[in-house]
Amino acid sequence: MARAPSAQKDEALAAIAERLRDRFEDVLEANAADLADERAAGLSDALVDRLRLSEARVTSMAEGVAQIIALGDPVGEVLDSKVLTSGLHLRKVRVPLGVIAVIYEARPNVTVDCAALTIKSGNAIVLRGSSYAQRSNAALAAIVREGLASAGLPEAAVELLDAGRDDVVKLATADRSVDLLIPRGGEELKAALKGAATVPVLYAAAGNCHVYVHEDADLEQARRIAYNAKVQRPGVCNAAETLLVHEAVAAELLPGLLEALRSAGVDLVGDDRARAAVGEAMVGQADDADWDTEYLDLKMAVGVVDSLEAAVEHVNRHGTGHSEAIVTSSERAGDEFSEAVDAACVYVNASTRFTDGFEFGMGAEIGNSTQKLHARGPIGLRELTTTKYVVHGEGQVRE
Amino acid sequence: MARAPSAQKDEALAAIAERLRDRFEDVLEANAADLADERAAGLSDALVDRLRLSEARVTSMAEGVAQIIALGDPVGEVLDSKVLTSGLHLRKVRVPLGVIAVIYEARPNVTVDCAALTIKSGNAIVLRGSSYAQRSNAALAAIVREGLASAGLPEAAVELLDAGRDDVVKLATADRSVDLLIPRGGEELKAALKGAATVPVLYAAAGNCHVYVHEDADLEQARRIAYNAKVQRPGVCNAAETLLVHEAVAAELLPGLLEALRSAGVDLVGDDRARAAVGEAMVGQADDADWDTEYLDLKMAVGVVDSLEAAVEHVNRHGTGHSEAIVTSSERAGDEFSEAVDAACVYVNASTRFTDGFEFGMGAEIGNSTQKLHARGPIGLRELTTTKYVVHGEGQVRE
Repeated sequence: MARAPSAQKDEALAAIAERLRDRFEDVLEANAADLADERAAGLSDALVDRLRLSEARVTSMAEGVAQIIALGDPVGEVLDSKVLTSGLHLRKVRVPLGVIAVIYEARPNVTVDCAALTIKSGNAIVLRGSSYAQRSNAALAAIVREGLASAGLPEAAVELLDAGRDDVVKLATADRSVDLLIPRGGEELKAALKGAATVPVLYAAAGNCHVYVHEDADLEQARRIAYNAKVQRPGVCNAAETLLVHEAVAAELLPGLLEALRSAGVDLVGDDRARAAVGEAMVGQADDADWDTEYLDLKMAVGVVDSLEAAVEHVNRHGTGHSEAIVTSSERAGDEFSEAVDAACVYVNASTRFTDGFEFGMGAEIGNSTQKLHARGPIGLRELTTTKYVVHGEGQVRE
Repeated sequence: MARAPSAQKDEALAAIAERLRDRFEDVLEANAADLADERAAGLSDALVDRLRLSEARVTSMAEGVAQIIALGDPVGEVLDSKVLTSGLHLRKVRVPLGVIAVIYEARPNVTVDCAALTIKSGNAIVLRGSSYAQRSNAALAAIVREGLASAGLPEAAVELLDAGRDDVVKLATADRSVDLLIPRGGEELKAALKGAATVPVLYAAAGNCHVYVHEDADLEQARRIAYNAKVQRPGVCNAAETLLVHEAVAAELLPGLLEALRSAGVDLVGDDRARAAVGEAMVGQADDADWDTEYLDLKMAVGVVDSLEAAVEHVNRHGTGHSEAIVTSSERAGDEFSEAVDAACVYVNASTRFTDGFEFGMGAEIGNSTQKLHARGPIGLRELTTTKYVVHGEGQVRE
């Protein structure tokens, strides 16, 4: 895979996209079996919704694959090229990582997104999905492997493990076989792997995201951004969990905004000043744990702060380094917040919901990294590569 | 530190360089006390040589700092800037990692190299040197801290731990305090940390490096490269440990080359064909462990292979992904080796000894990474940074 030409990789991706469109009924049949499984009865509506496929959803997978075809091949990209004082000609070249393993939740589309990104980046992938989605994933992986074979690439570049049998810890300790493990999903999985993993890991982790409304904000804009960041899709990692408001605008902003959030079904908790601004009936008492909680649900914590500095301190203390937003009409305040907040993505006057490989023009993503090493933010094609120095000489030796 | 202007950081570095030159006698006095310590009596000559300072060595530290001043500031570098389809203006900006911890062997110059690189890259550093060098390190760290203070930067940006007391494992598990741990030195330290570390780690690890002489090599060039890679400084990680020779040139190349290596004091072991080419008296029998051993000494394993493919297979099986060289007169063979070998640095017709931050034009290095994630090869200024997406909008929300 590492040395496959771009055209051959794209041919495989095109074959996969075509098969997804032609054979969506096979996929839906497998998905129906997953949904009919007695264990699926225990899932919440939100989880069933993530597991359920439709013709439109399978078609959208095919479109995602087509978008990845249109992106440039990262492999072979020359990041640096120079002649050293020794006369050596040094090039820093982008190369595939090798074998990537992904552990993911019961979302069958992840199977195709991950496989397509790893094929394009010249890697092999080991997929370990949820047992709830095992049949759906198997149908999708079969299509992917057929696409590889039809382009003359090895089927073995995409392997789907048996989620019922194969151990997550075994994968996380497969030292000379796995070059990178990406665990998606909750903090629980992260905690389980943190002690056990010996292979390199990139956690596609939680987002305890904040929207901070500064004293000089356009309040209409602030309302739209805070509402969107919380309500538009509450179950994802780039949704906001906490709203922070400068005390100077709390009385004007909060009553209308919190009323709108409540009408959208958002359960609200807050500190004393937030509650005082709107009446304690509308907002419950936030406890210490609330500021650290990623609700992933229609719930939001609301706090009033004295200054931008206090907002930054709150964000850096309680945030998970995912996506943080400020609403302000001052360039200086925007810059101050952007520089001082320690996170993968910082927004000035926009919703945190934009943190996403597709929105960022990266085609797709395997997840979103909140760690600082290797990759920070959406994990796309480039993040699935490493580099190699290739140095040409004419017999140079070190003096 | 993260937000200090370039000029202020360079001012601190200049003050450090000046003090190193002016106060080298203080440093030499502290170093003499380290060398006179009864525990130092147990060190080998090579280790004493690494620990020992001289006026020239302290001056050379000052020169290293001056070189780092001359490099560009990586902080604030814009790696990507584009307008997204949503109209958002996205910039990917280089930012410091935060707090870097380095665990290192009894080489006092590392104290200054690491401090200078972290200051320039806007980070703070925690230094945990060897107890053998504690007094030398303390004298150097005092100079560094004075330099910081004289430029109005916080002294606390450089902390030297007490190697006699402070625990390596404590440092490796300081989860919210340490953003990156770089353990230098042997595989033993790596093994000890591998299970224990919970903070992000970049191993500046061992080099089991190879020189492969292809059938079409200029044999005079091959002799010089192999000799240099083994003999010029055998105790460092980019020195070669194994020589592989294509069978077509073994009989012509090996007698003269191995005689020269022997004359330089190199202890030789080899496989049957290598021994047959020069007589068994000159070359001992290599056992399985030899091919996997980083001797870090005047010892070398010699093997004869049937083909370039066999050489690549040997290198990928036994190498540690550090630095690998081929000697060949064919561009095709050079490209084949460069692509197929999985290592941080691959050389065509040059000695492996060039893998070094200074040689690569990076000013200095904190070590050399053989892992694939985050940084591969010399760890310089850029490798001590991460990135942040800063996204400006005009009220955009996700539909």
